[in-house]
Amino acid sequence: MPRTAGIILVGNEILSGKVIDANASYLCRELRALGVEVRRISVIPDEVDLIAAEARRFGTDYDVVFTSGGVGPTHDDVTIEGVARAAGVRVIRHPALVALLEGFYKGALTEAHLKMAEVPDGAELLVDESVRFPTILMGNVYVLPGVPEIFRRKFDAIRERFRDQPIFLKNVFVSIGEGILADHLNALVREYPDLLCGSYPEFSNPEYKVKVTLESRDLAFLDMALAELLKRLPADSVVRVA
Amino acid sequence: MPRTAGIILVGNEILSGKVIDANASYLCRELRALGVEVRRISVIPDEVDLIAAEARRFGTDYDVVFTSGGVGPTHDDVTIEGVARAAGVRVIRHPALVALLEGFYKGALTEAHLKMAEVPDGAELLVDESVRFPTILMGNVYVLPGVPEIFRRKFDAIRERFRDQPIFLKNVFVSIGEGILADHLNALVREYPDLLCGSYPEFSNPEYKVKVTLESRDLAFLDMALAELLKRLPADSVVRVA
Repeated sequence: MPRTAGIILVGNEILSGKVIDANASYLCRELRALGVEVRRISVIPDEVDLIAAEARRFGTDYDVVFTSGGVGPTHDDVTIEGVARAAGVRVIRHPALVALLEGFYKGALTEAHLKMAEVPDGAELLVDESVRFPTILMGNVYVLPGVPEIFRRKFDAIRERFRDQPIFLKNVFVSIGEGILADHLNALVREYPDLLCGSYPEFSNPEYKVKVTLESRDLAFLDMALAELLKRLPADSVVRVA
Repeated sequence: MPRTAGIILVGNEILSGKVIDANASYLCRELRALGVEVRRISVIPDEVDLIAAEARRFGTDYDVVFTSGGVGPTHDDVTIEGVARAAGVRVIRHPALVALLEGFYKGALTEAHLKMAEVPDGAELLVDESVRFPTILMGNVYVLPGVPEIFRRKFDAIRERFRDQPIFLKNVFVSIGEGILADHLNALVREYPDLLCGSYPEFSNPEYKVKVTLESRDLAFLDMALAELLKRLPADSVVRVA
């Protein structure tokens, strides 16, 4: 069974237009390359109840879930509490994380810093030498930070866990509009119902009018579908296949 | 009551990492400037059932809802059907849109083009001279296209509908880390529970360590909260207020 993923961005700063997401877009590209199908992204406010509801729902609906943001020492960092509530467990202070923070902050460690040692009771710590702070895994929910540099470093440290059968992609760039193309695509998806087929018009691109994407985990099937589409399309309408 | 919004991106191409969203990020910034609070963004696949469920839920939860993408003549354009199903109505071919398409495509009009004349039964057409094609409004759901240039043009044509009391923002840039800052912010939000207060660390910025954002629709209240924060913060820790 292909593996599915959901992404929860805990992001007042995104919703209020102050910051443009960089983490979901990174994760979508990386997960796709690993063969994982992202089925949903939610951007929600930094509010415990909403995070809890979303983590619970995503945890049930998808094989793996990633959260981004809302971890840290300040009042608006409530993701850990939300993920704990979703799992119906308490938040505890993890001794290994306390030790790590003590080593890092030395005498300057504050109560607020110690908030970063909090995890949902029963969470697993994923330790990797490439990252200073382990990644918290609660059930199937991976808790990642919001700062993009750290988000990427932490995801890269765990990425091989998610490698699945690859999803193969063919792009067909055509010089005809969607109005003409539609009948050909309808016929194609009727004949190949398992094919993932997208159609993306470009309105200011001189090279082509529509990019058609064909995707499958089965390369032989994909090649057959591609051949079928190319046979159906009017002569000279195919600009490029890539 | 402040007006809330939800954004639904119908976006296989975003979930599969092929395209980076430009519409939700645009809309979040614009709506915020208009005084509208975006409460949630969902990115979901181009699947009728999912669109219907999301449009129904968003339509109930938020004052206004925007969809982006999934409108057009091809098999993967199923947003209209999803929005109709959410409202429990049929999809009909709108005579005014048929006439518009006939005028535009002249003799080259295909059955597939006519799919773009489909609307949920009972939808309103928002006509504006700046856009060729009216925007479809079903209940409180505004159906917008996925192509960013057209998305923006269509939103800009209707933006004044959404103008509300402005949300004022003050940014305080500080040279102390979140571990020290946290206590001050906690005290501040205890004293000003209605204040929207965010804390955003920067790890590679030489100018400051954390950006603190204070927001309110009440400018006098915001100024008081800002004065309170500045009084609380250690001397010399404030780099800049903007």
